[in-house]
Amino acid sequence: MDYQELIEEVYHEVNKLELKGKVADYIPELAKVNPDQFGIALVDLEGKVYGVGDYKTPFSIQSISKVHTLTMVFHVFNSKLWTRVNVEPSGNPFNSIAQLEFEKGIPRNPFINAGALVIADALTSKFEDPKTQIINFINDISGDKCVSINEEVRISELKHSERNIAMAYFLKAYDNFDNDVQEVLETYVSQCAIEMSCVDLAKSFSFLANDGYSIFAKRNIVTESNARRINALMLTCGFYDESGEFAYRVGLPGKSGVGGGVGAVMPHKFSVAVWSPELNEKGNSVKSIKALELLTDKLKFSLF
Amino acid sequence: MDYQELIEEVYHEVNKLELKGKVADYIPELAKVNPDQFGIALVDLEGKVYGVGDYKTPFSIQSISKVHTLTMVFHVFNSKLWTRVNVEPSGNPFNSIAQLEFEKGIPRNPFINAGALVIADALTSKFEDPKTQIINFINDISGDKCVSINEEVRISELKHSERNIAMAYFLKAYDNFDNDVQEVLETYVSQCAIEMSCVDLAKSFSFLANDGYSIFAKRNIVTESNARRINALMLTCGFYDESGEFAYRVGLPGKSGVGGGVGAVMPHKFSVAVWSPELNEKGNSVKSIKALELLTDKLKFSLF
Amino acid sequence: MDYQELIEEVYHEVNKLELKGKVADYIPELAKVNPDQFGIALVDLEGKVYGVGDYKTPFSIQSISKVHTLTMVFHVFNSKLWTRVNVEPSGNPFNSIAQLEFEKGIPRNPFINAGALVIADALTSKFEDPKTQIINFINDISGDKCVSINEEVRISELKHSERNIAMAYFLKAYDNFDNDVQEVLETYVSQCAIEMSCVDLAKSFSFLANDGYSIFAKRNIVTESNARRINALMLTCGFYDESGEFAYRVGLPGKSGVGGGVGAVMPHKFSVAVWSPELNEKGNSVKSIKALELLTDKLKFSLF
Amino acid sequence: MDYQELIEEVYHEVNKLELKGKVADYIPELAKVNPDQFGIALVDLEGKVYGVGDYKTPFSIQSISKVHTLTMVFHVFNSKLWTRVNVEPSGNPFNSIAQLEFEKGIPRNPFINAGALVIADALTSKFEDPKTQIINFINDISGDKCVSINEEVRISELKHSERNIAMAYFLKAYDNFDNDVQEVLETYVSQCAIEMSCVDLAKSFSFLANDGYSIFAKRNIVTESNARRINALMLTCGFYDESGEFAYRVGLPGKSGVGGGVGAVMPHKFSVAVWSPELNEKGNSVKSIKALELLTDKLKFSLF
Repeated sequence: MDYQELIEEVYHEVNKLELKGKVADYIPELAKVNPDQFGIALVDLEGKVYGVGDYKTPFSIQSISKVHTLTMVFHVFNSKLWTRVNVEPSGNPFNSIAQLEFEKGIPRNPFINAGALVIADALTSKFEDPKTQIINFINDISGDKCVSINEEVRISELKHSERNIAMAYFLKAYDNFDNDVQEVLETYVSQCAIEMSCVDLAKSFSFLANDGYSIFAKRNIVTESNARRINALMLTCGFYDESGEFAYRVGLPGKSGVGGGVGAVMPHKFSVAVWSPELNEKGNSVKSIKALELLTDKLKFSLF
Repeated sequence: MDYQELIEEVYHEVNKLELKGKVADYIPELAKVNPDQFGIALVDLEGKVYGVGDYKTPFSIQSISKVHTLTMVFHVFNSKLWTRVNVEPSGNPFNSIAQLEFEKGIPRNPFINAGALVIADALTSKFEDPKTQIINFINDISGDKCVSINEEVRISELKHSERNIAMAYFLKAYDNFDNDVQEVLETYVSQCAIEMSCVDLAKSFSFLANDGYSIFAKRNIVTESNARRINALMLTCGFYDESGEFAYRVGLPGKSGVGGGVGAVMPHKFSVAVWSPELNEKGNSVKSIKALELLTDKLKFSLF
Repeated sequence: MDYQELIEEVYHEVNKLELKGKVADYIPELAKVNPDQFGIALVDLEGKVYGVGDYKTPFSIQSISKVHTLTMVFHVFNSKLWTRVNVEPSGNPFNSIAQLEFEKGIPRNPFINAGALVIADALTSKFEDPKTQIINFINDISGDKCVSINEEVRISELKHSERNIAMAYFLKAYDNFDNDVQEVLETYVSQCAIEMSCVDLAKSFSFLANDGYSIFAKRNIVTESNARRINALMLTCGFYDESGEFAYRVGLPGKSGVGGGVGAVMPHKFSVAVWSPELNEKGNSVKSIKALELLTDKLKFSLF
Repeated sequence: MDYQELIEEVYHEVNKLELKGKVADYIPELAKVNPDQFGIALVDLEGKVYGVGDYKTPFSIQSISKVHTLTMVFHVFNSKLWTRVNVEPSGNPFNSIAQLEFEKGIPRNPFINAGALVIADALTSKFEDPKTQIINFINDISGDKCVSINEEVRISELKHSERNIAMAYFLKAYDNFDNDVQEVLETYVSQCAIEMSCVDLAKSFSFLANDGYSIFAKRNIVTESNARRINALMLTCGFYDESGEFAYRVGLPGKSGVGGGVGAVMPHKFSVAVWSPELNEKGNSVKSIKALELLTDKLKFSLF
């Protein structure tokens, strides 16, 4: 099947459905985005790019960056990391602190906020300048200087981060946080404020479709076994408390962000990024999820 | 790779590890089993069987039967079913009632006890004699009269089912349970007391590896799309509150039972059943999980 | 101060406030009651009765009966009882089952449903005919054959008791329930369907104002020390998850029921019963609570 | 009864029981205290002091100071305060953050840490120098310059306050915290590090036994009605998740601290302070609680 034709078909069908949601408004800067934007980019194993709609427009990747930072710590910490973060689906909203208390300071998985903060803390321990390292890493695996930080979003998130600060101190109370809270928070907020287009995001996920090898960086980013594990984590935990629903309906490993983006992977076939700002009540983009559902339906394959 | 060689290699490596666990003892009859038994059976898409160890010995499949009953209601109820049961991972033990209260009587997924009771209730509404229907169905998709009920186990579980009865009445309180509790419980307990060998279990899972088509029943059991969905559910919810761990380490859709068995699937390749009675603290067989982990490692593929 | 004058003043002031609530409707029979009824009865230590409004009209005492049954088991079981039921405020609705799971089958206190079921179970172990014993006991301490059972309410509650049955089986699962569930439930539902007027209810609470001595039964019902303890329990746990609010605003030990009644006690002064069917969202009568608040304000004393 | 004789009797009986507990060790400075110390002081309505044992030795009052700060904000904020803090018993440990999430940033009561932080925040809004104001206030109502701050304890608590900082930021996330977290924390930690003897503590609680009038300050500290309300709060919430047990066994309004002290009140009779460092598993002093139980038993009165 021709991928370009496929994603265009998906694009038009989704548009016809006139799906409605609500743009994220927990910070004013995210609420300003034009809600009608919608783009799809697909990258095959040879690195060929297919795109439709607003696939070249940069958007706020938000929580999708958690996949990138997890990848960065993965080969360094590997098994040690899993004494600090668990790998179980959460079943709770991404910013719940109650679960963290019940489980004595070990976040359920690296994709809820508490888990991502632990990973930002680990990066802060490892790197002099973790913010720049993250940008360089994503640029590297995308094969392009594609990453920019939206300063307004970054500053606004920093101002509205009481809940994340609370979580960081709570982790500290359980001895699961090593560095200065403010310092780690700066890194975390910076990674969430990254802007990329669908095409660059899809490129940055390409190594996960290719057993850990990035055709853009021209090197192995993680081992084959770890690539599989990151995919497994995305499948079970990538969509907050809607992860089961996504696995059930779509069946691809993926990660969503409240900016309306989704990065996903069909192992040994392609990586894909979809973006549209309007969200459902669980915080996932209504159009992006529908697009991926149609995509796997039309391809007649998913993971399963 | 030669499957027979592969599973023999796995079998011997696991045996060498001398893994220890604890045989289920919540009913005395399960505790009587010889804990050292261990078997693996693999069935490829052509229906060819590979086996090692105690792969022909019948054991109590317990919760694995939830996959069979889910399949039975799937094509009948389809979307309607999902108003009564959710598809999200639970993150709680399989017999937790607290979550059911928080979520107002809608079980998290069909593989926790509350969800399986809703499905047993649906089967009771549909069939005159659901117990016999379940047996016939499993025999059919295994291509063999392989199913027997262990009467001692059945009677003992019936005697120790206060918690399940509590859950059934709780579901009734939320109008999510239509039939007489005792009647449904008889069906549920009967399905849990089913005994099958690894080989027959692997055969009964074969259609899930083959887009819904059973080579033993020689017919489509569910649509391709529904086969994928059952696999997605097993991957995200099949191992109680260890489902994320299993997806992470093994990466196959599967379902475990407290009898020590696991049925799993590598879509478009094979189905596999492993059995060994000693369990870890989450209620999953230590040897069976290790065997499946080695299997996917050696094959160098999992779903991802 | 003249008690008759006092309660009339309170009665008229409350009526002027035109407080509104919602009659209990979880069973149709309770919803049928005329919502405008409102009565107050006060009984001093000499047994003299003061009354105003509908204070002679029988109403469904519902959960207030939990004080009577607790009293019945108190001297028999005493310290042993407290291995089966705790004495802490619940902070959750009266019919929550989640807390029971977290606390492994030991109900938080004897006034939530789970705790009252344990007490009904204890009475069933002790008495041949617990239903009649409860009626006889209340008649005895009220000095009158005042108790009747509303058969319609009883039968209707029996029909709608899935949640209580669930709790009873859940208690059984934790070995904290000895008798047949249905048998105990009959007792429990029967006690909830008791009808009494404010005057008889106030009389039946009189011994709690008088160090355990009932002027109507002309005997000590419980020891002085146990009378104090029942009062302490009512103060901390008598109003579901509004107990703190009631202690704060009113400051008297008391127990409410979803029929709209409240029985309360000013130790060494009087017992009092108030009834009006409209409830606030926590299930407590809006007028009854306001009346007791005004009463203690005007008397310028509460417990504290 | 002669109060001096009474408390001596209680003192000796408790000593004979050889009760054992565990000195608080969450900060090293508290763990250094001699665990065998034990003192009782009782102050009657005329201001006469009775004492036995180590009743003149200053100790760390810790959470008992929450009663003093609540009193300070009470007349200022009154009803407005109760939009920010609730008055229900918690049923959870004093430093639980989960409950705060379930109840959307409104602490259950002013005596759990989250509630006391809200009050420290309110004091910070009102006073230029809240730390000094608190000291002055307690000195005032004790009629003595009795308050000192243990600097070692203060600094150590400041170093170990991750959990309280987490709670403060969490409150901020729910718009229930107005000032700079560090500034409020300084006040909170300072109040917890106050040292007073039993005699001074009992004096500082005297107004609560006397309808709000302090014989030492020679003025009304709060209205009669508010004095009753503070007592009600102590009775239902003063002993963490053991409040029901204390009301049941002792029946006096009181507040405990992890330093081993308890301040309590018998309205219209006396105030009393007991101190002994060894704690039970709920964080309450084993000897202090036993002493108060014997005291009310011997007096044959409690509130009830």
